[in-house]
Amino acid sequence: MPRMAQSPTDAVLAAIRFDSNGLVPAIAQQHDTGEVLMLAWMNREAVVETLATGRVCYFSRSRNALWRKGETSGQEQHLRELRVDCDGDTLLLLVDQHGVACHTGRRACFFRAVRDGALVEIAAPLVSPEALYGPGHRHG
Amino acid sequence: MPRMAQSPTDAVLAAIRFDSNGLVPAIAQQHDTGEVLMLAWMNREAVVETLATGRVCYFSRSRNALWRKGETSGQEQHLRELRVDCDGDTLLLLVDQHGVACHTGRRACFFRAVRDGALVEIAAPLVSPEALYGPGHRHG
Repeated sequence: MPRMAQSPTDAVLAAIRFDSNGLVPAIAQQHDTGEVLMLAWMNREAVVETLATGRVCYFSRSRNALWRKGETSGQEQHLRELRVDCDGDTLLLLVDQHGVACHTGRRACFFRAVRDGALVEIAAPLVSPEALYGPGHRHG
Repeated sequence: MPRMAQSPTDAVLAAIRFDSNGLVPAIAQQHDTGEVLMLAWMNREAVVETLATGRVCYFSRSRNALWRKGETSGQEQHLRELRVDCDGDTLLLLVDQHGVACHTGRRACFFRAVRDGALVEIAAPLVSPEALYGPGHRHG
């Protein structure tokens, strides 16, 4: 019998080596500037939903639930391209980030750097966490 | 008593939340082009050595040992800047990659992408793995 053509989602899932917790790390990179915004984790369901909707969905390890980026804060990530690495154990998401990626209100999460012999902050918040999540709200 | 000034290495180690295996994921990005080259893991010792020598050293989970990038293949990574994310659970390494980062001989590990409804290869090897590691040699 001829094999059914594999859907792109099936092909991606087959290429990913999820870890013992069923997760794979995913790097989000702004598609046009090249800025690395954040790293988060995905399970199978998050990969499937992200490819189906074009809006990036992670798996929150702290909340143990799907985490639709921007659902609370409005700072959505729209997928431009999903890439899989050589070993299938990391994803690279080229995204269009609306607003800020970091829950601290900064554009990217990597705002601390070793420079001139010290660990220093190299980016300031663009919006306050309260404006993103409301007072006392927990991000996720 | 006055506190001793913290060294940058101590400050970085204090900022990192290593996982239950004592590891933290590290993204390597080419400092000038912005290309995301690879993701690998570091333990405390790898972070200390990388900051001390300026040559990137990872921890190989498959070999359970320090992995001085390029030691076998000659494809070294030189550190330009180390960044820590908001939660301290991911590192971003801005590097100068000599030659190719991927053990397949490609410049970067993320050479498979979902395009036009299929998972396709978007980059070809620049050198053969045999040229990097010798026949039958296992990369690490």
